[in-house]
Amino acid sequence: MDLNAYLKEQRARVDKALDSYLPGEDVLPTSLHKAMRYSTFAAGKRIRPILVLAACEAVGGSIDSVMPAACAMEMIHTYSLIHDDLPAMDDDDFRRGRPTCHKVYGEALAILAGDALLTEAFILLSRLGTDNSVSVEIARRVIATISRCAGSMGMVGGQVVDMDSEGKDIDLATLEYIHTRKTGALILASVQSGALLGGATEVQVEALGRYAKAAGLAFQVADDILDIVGDQQLLGKDVGSDQERGKATYPALLGLEAARDRARELRDVALASLDRFDERAEPLRSIAHYIVDRSF
Amino acid sequence: MDLNAYLKEQRARVDKALDSYLPGEDVLPTSLHKAMRYSTFAAGKRIRPILVLAACEAVGGSIDSVMPAACAMEMIHTYSLIHDDLPAMDDDDFRRGRPTCHKVYGEALAILAGDALLTEAFILLSRLGTDNSVSVEIARRVIATISRCAGSMGMVGGQVVDMDSEGKDIDLATLEYIHTRKTGALILASVQSGALLGGATEVQVEALGRYAKAAGLAFQVADDILDIVGDQQLLGKDVGSDQERGKATYPALLGLEAARDRARELRDVALASLDRFDERAEPLRSIAHYIVDRSF
Repeated sequence: MDLNAYLKEQRARVDKALDSYLPGEDVLPTSLHKAMRYSTFAAGKRIRPILVLAACEAVGGSIDSVMPAACAMEMIHTYSLIHDDLPAMDDDDFRRGRPTCHKVYGEALAILAGDALLTEAFILLSRLGTDNSVSVEIARRVIATISRCAGSMGMVGGQVVDMDSEGKDIDLATLEYIHTRKTGALILASVQSGALLGGATEVQVEALGRYAKAAGLAFQVADDILDIVGDQQLLGKDVGSDQERGKATYPALLGLEAARDRARELRDVALASLDRFDERAEPLRSIAHYIVDRSF
Repeated sequence: MDLNAYLKEQRARVDKALDSYLPGEDVLPTSLHKAMRYSTFAAGKRIRPILVLAACEAVGGSIDSVMPAACAMEMIHTYSLIHDDLPAMDDDDFRRGRPTCHKVYGEALAILAGDALLTEAFILLSRLGTDNSVSVEIARRVIATISRCAGSMGMVGGQVVDMDSEGKDIDLATLEYIHTRKTGALILASVQSGALLGGATEVQVEALGRYAKAAGLAFQVADDILDIVGDQQLLGKDVGSDQERGKATYPALLGLEAARDRARELRDVALASLDRFDERAEPLRSIAHYIVDRSF
């Protein structure tokens, strides 16, 4: 399949839906809604929402009914970037080639825009099931899954351990603890939500969970590799910033070549998890290839 | 009724439930869970969760089934205090007589503890309906109500306008815009959630909504009055801090006596909303009296 065309099409759908779900810039308080939109429409890859859609497709579900969940995942991701970039956290001035939210709107509004985006995600999620396309019980499970993956034992927890580990020598187990939570948890939640809302069986949810865990970790290994060998222009962020900060990365712990092997190995685990799926899982397969290949 | 005894008993119940719902201090990442617990167990009045319980009781519901919602409201309230106290926001060193979260745990962890508490609230809310004490559809409506009230057009929005208004001359309409959102929205969400989960009819939900709006605003008017005439020791925060910051308040806009009249008037609206409720609404009535009387 033509993955680029697929990603482009899905990205356009997600962007359109995000635009329709987020309060307009003219809605009071306008400064808040501007800040929320500024960071949401900052040329993100929309990986998480696209995974929601692709997982839903893989089990034969309808894309329209999962769009609120897809956009909720992107809002949670965006809130986490806004807060991560704050001076008290990573203190980043640029993100995706543009000034970060707090550089444009100030720290206070950036904190609140992040808070509001996280909350907006749950406003959206509470719409699931109201159009009878999915049962309310499935909608409830999706909210449970997403909130757990985003919370203190998921994404936020991973961020804390990542922060605590800066400048320290950490082992591979700690690095994987961080990544399975900091980035992996939202990817897992995206895939599982799409599957649940698409009508997956329990066996399918489980298989797609394995796919997501492997693909999520592969994504992070690839990201670490890109921080060393990537193109600053293409990435829209500073290359070598992990090293400068003394951050533990896969290449730093394993060496560049072994890190690449690890990425390939994880890709293969992800692909094997999809063995029993038909051609409707092709986007998920291509995404697993794409995640790893972009780091070469 | 003996309101103090009632509040004390409910507070103990809420504290016990919060303790059981929040991850323990020994759960990884321990620093995060310590920070979340530090701010949650900072001698709060537990007004919002008690309103959830009292509204549930007023319509004849069972308290146990609404405890997750009650605790979720307290977590959302606590997260908002942690973020409000940050240097980029109100820059407060003390809250309820103790050092604020960021003074103890640092800014980064305070931001993340707030994020995690907000997320934890939705983890808890996704439990509603799993024990069959309420329908999943009612649980969904509760999540919709709470997220809306906490979001960009509710609490967070109120905080933004409040921030924008500091040091400016604002009129009564703007002041009420701020308060109906910044504090009023969570009080409304608490009462409506308790009512919905307690099995209220639509008419009852509507009446209790009127009660909550009036009581919520009365609470804020009383708070403004207390900032001028209150006892620093009892409040656990600086008296006169609103004036110092050039914050608009009811006494500043209306004068102290007219502000007191407004508080009484709002109390009476709240009480009138309960006309058709029986003695099970006594706690709600006493709370309306208590809110206003504490400012005299």
